[in-house]
Amino acid sequence: MKKIIIPFLTVFSYLTCFGQDVDSTVIRAIYDNELVSDVPVNNLRTLCKEAPGRIAGSAISLKAINIIEKAIMKMGPDTVYLQDLETYPWSRGIKEEAVTYFSKNGKFELHALAIGGSIATGDRGIKSSIVEVDSFDELKKLGQKNVRGRIVFFNQPMNPEFINPGRAYGNAGYQRVFGASEAARYGAIGVVVRSLTLASNYEPHTGILRYNDSIAKIPAICISTLDADSLSKLLKTDSSLKVYFKTNCKNLPHAKSFNIIAEIKGSEKPKEIITVGAHIDSWDVGEGAQDDGVGCIHVMEVIRLFRELGIKPKRTVRIVIFMDEEMHQTGAKKYAETVKQKNEKIYAAYESDSGSLLPLGFGCSTEEPAYSKFMALEKYFRPYELHEFYKGDGDVDVYPLKEFGVPLLNLHPDQQRYFDYHHSVSDRFEAVHPRELKLCGAATASLIYLIDKLDIFGE
Amino acid sequence: MKKIIIPFLTVFSYLTCFGQDVDSTVIRAIYDNELVSDVPVNNLRTLCKEAPGRIAGSAISLKAINIIEKAIMKMGPDTVYLQDLETYPWSRGIKEEAVTYFSKNGKFELHALAIGGSIATGDRGIKSSIVEVDSFDELKKLGQKNVRGRIVFFNQPMNPEFINPGRAYGNAGYQRVFGASEAARYGAIGVVVRSLTLASNYEPHTGILRYNDSIAKIPAICISTLDADSLSKLLKTDSSLKVYFKTNCKNLPHAKSFNIIAEIKGSEKPKEIITVGAHIDSWDVGEGAQDDGVGCIHVMEVIRLFRELGIKPKRTVRIVIFMDEEMHQTGAKKYAETVKQKNEKIYAAYESDSGSLLPLGFGCSTEEPAYSKFMALEKYFRPYELHEFYKGDGDVDVYPLKEFGVPLLNLHPDQQRYFDYHHSVSDRFEAVHPRELKLCGAATASLIYLIDKLDIFGE
Repeated sequence: MKKIIIPFLTVFSYLTCFGQDVDSTVIRAIYDNELVSDVPVNNLRTLCKEAPGRIAGSAISLKAINIIEKAIMKMGPDTVYLQDLETYPWSRGIKEEAVTYFSKNGKFELHALAIGGSIATGDRGIKSSIVEVDSFDELKKLGQKNVRGRIVFFNQPMNPEFINPGRAYGNAGYQRVFGASEAARYGAIGVVVRSLTLASNYEPHTGILRYNDSIAKIPAICISTLDADSLSKLLKTDSSLKVYFKTNCKNLPHAKSFNIIAEIKGSEKPKEIITVGAHIDSWDVGEGAQDDGVGCIHVMEVIRLFRELGIKPKRTVRIVIFMDEEMHQTGAKKYAETVKQKNEKIYAAYESDSGSLLPLGFGCSTEEPAYSKFMALEKYFRPYELHEFYKGDGDVDVYPLKEFGVPLLNLHPDQQRYFDYHHSVSDRFEAVHPRELKLCGAATASLIYLIDKLDIFGE
Repeated sequence: MKKIIIPFLTVFSYLTCFGQDVDSTVIRAIYDNELVSDVPVNNLRTLCKEAPGRIAGSAISLKAINIIEKAIMKMGPDTVYLQDLETYPWSRGIKEEAVTYFSKNGKFELHALAIGGSIATGDRGIKSSIVEVDSFDELKKLGQKNVRGRIVFFNQPMNPEFINPGRAYGNAGYQRVFGASEAARYGAIGVVVRSLTLASNYEPHTGILRYNDSIAKIPAICISTLDADSLSKLLKTDSSLKVYFKTNCKNLPHAKSFNIIAEIKGSEKPKEIITVGAHIDSWDVGEGAQDDGVGCIHVMEVIRLFRELGIKPKRTVRIVIFMDEEMHQTGAKKYAETVKQKNEKIYAAYESDSGSLLPLGFGCSTEEPAYSKFMALEKYFRPYELHEFYKGDGDVDVYPLKEFGVPLLNLHPDQQRYFDYHHSVSDRFEAVHPRELKLCGAATASLIYLIDKLDIFGE
């Protein structure tokens, strides 16, 4: 590609079609500021490099709170405070996890990680023949007879035919989340789960599991997609193949932690609050960059941009940096409880928790007539190539507000590369492109500006 | 991000709105096949790893032709043949390029590359004080008095405020293309040009220059953006700073080369031809992955997908793998001449030469009434998140067909990361994401299918 003058008319055709009204001008100013600012990239680098692997309740997660609180203060909001909460930390343990299989041809290592929330195997580990399934239906058909005393291997891949890998994740994720208890129901002694990613490599991806309290708890690990493919292939010719694994993870006693809250007070309706959230905790194995350090940066940029550009929202814009999204959502629950206790009016709640690849649009949970007003916002984002406006359901941290009738919004960035990083060691600062970080930050600030300014959810 | 069932309604809402007509079903089949196929990634890997740095006329470029011709034959088109042409190769030379500056604080290396098409400095190199400019206007104001006998340093950065970095490239590119002759007009002995990228690092990006034959030719190099920043800063306090550079490049005698042409014959109107092109040559320093190995893969996939899915186009679909886009467009010229000689009817001409990040849409050069029909194709691509349909002007290789009244089309992928790789050593196979490669291939095949099936440019 070498053309030196490239025709690209979107911005200009937009201005011709819709008139360069003041809101378009403000949005252009938001983008102009964001695209030349060093602040978002520098803040993300500091968070990722100085406080990687921020499991809720861990010492490093408290350091992260300190870093982000200070960075927000510099941006000059009206108030910044911490909201106390209790977390229930989980730790991978200090002794090495070991995962091996024994086939006819010898002993081989698998690339694996304990699944978050899992109990440990104990020092001796567990060793057994394995039974592969690609659905709970298949597991049920096999029943106690084939499962008892064995290790269940859940190997349903994410479906590459979904255009949005987020949907593929949604459809395969039950294996990691509920697989352990479901296998234990038929007497399994452990589970091995194929990593939730479309990437074909040796990198395992962790994440949370949920035990059913009425069923015995068994330990669970995830293995890389290439290991899962190999294991599945070997099993076809060597059904006596055994897997051994040892994990040292621990569910720890509760620990004190915090949400960070920062506000720009509304100039006309200060008691109406727009919640703008992301989560600061992450899995322990990466730096929590795409999940969800970037979300914290996006929402912090709302404060910086509003302050630097002199944008005075009518309503109070409240940034919430949530703790504990990945495990128990204690931050989300505490925030929602407090809203209820104080009888606060949350006008809308936005969350950015899908990474920071190219921003494509926004989801919104509201009904008519607000929904049409939300959909009509697309015209403001056309010059910036965001077109995906759709009926969404918010992200995890703002979801508890739904029962109070709060309209939920979420950022929808491109997801093609997201699950390459998600919950793995690859989720590092370097996985985030500076332009994509800034474009998501500018999109976030622009949406919050428009929702308030144009009274999208009513006056 | 951890929600296990993610609401994402685009595909289904589309089907509800527009009915699951046969064309939508065909497009879905194209995507389904492409997203699970290993062919596109394997072909790109072979091209990049076995024939990197494919300067037109070089031995490696002939090897690349052989590789791609064979790969196309496997896909079963009706005909495959080579179209002879003459190229005018340029070689960087075998001796090391050296670029140094001498400041008050000593001698330092710069990360640099000769600009493609440049003459060499000769064995002794050139050394001189330098004069920095950020436009041709500034150069003109300085005039002979300040420029004669010196090296001109063009340092206008790409503007980060453009949403599409392709536009920023278009606006800053004149420095690299025309800077040498423009500086020579005022008596300069050489030029140093800031690399055309938004990335802030030590990687130089090459590309073509054009000499004005009525002005003395002077040698030209590009330096990395961080080097350009440092040099500019130093010059402010040390105007006596000198730059030395030595280049060994050569414009070689002409060499024989080829375009590759492959066709699926039209079932109803075989004499109406849809040209579907990309270029196989690349700069010497990378593997020519994003520019434009990926384009070759996208257009080859049209043949594979049409054959595997039994799609029989009404018109002849002619894939053209062009040689020599980067330097002299001898492949494009030869193709257009032949079309004219044979009086062929080219129904439309498509090109993919903007890389293979996330596909966002297509440009089209046509006028009404066809333009509205083209714009209406957007509805078929909504489930795949392509929305950018705009008035474009084709890419470089199909552009000569415009004078015959041929409607030109181009793929518009996301450009945010494109200029990180473009014309640099980073343009390697690893710079291409498998999903993004496949999504662009499926989008290309879908567009060609629709243009033919729906007679977008008339029956």
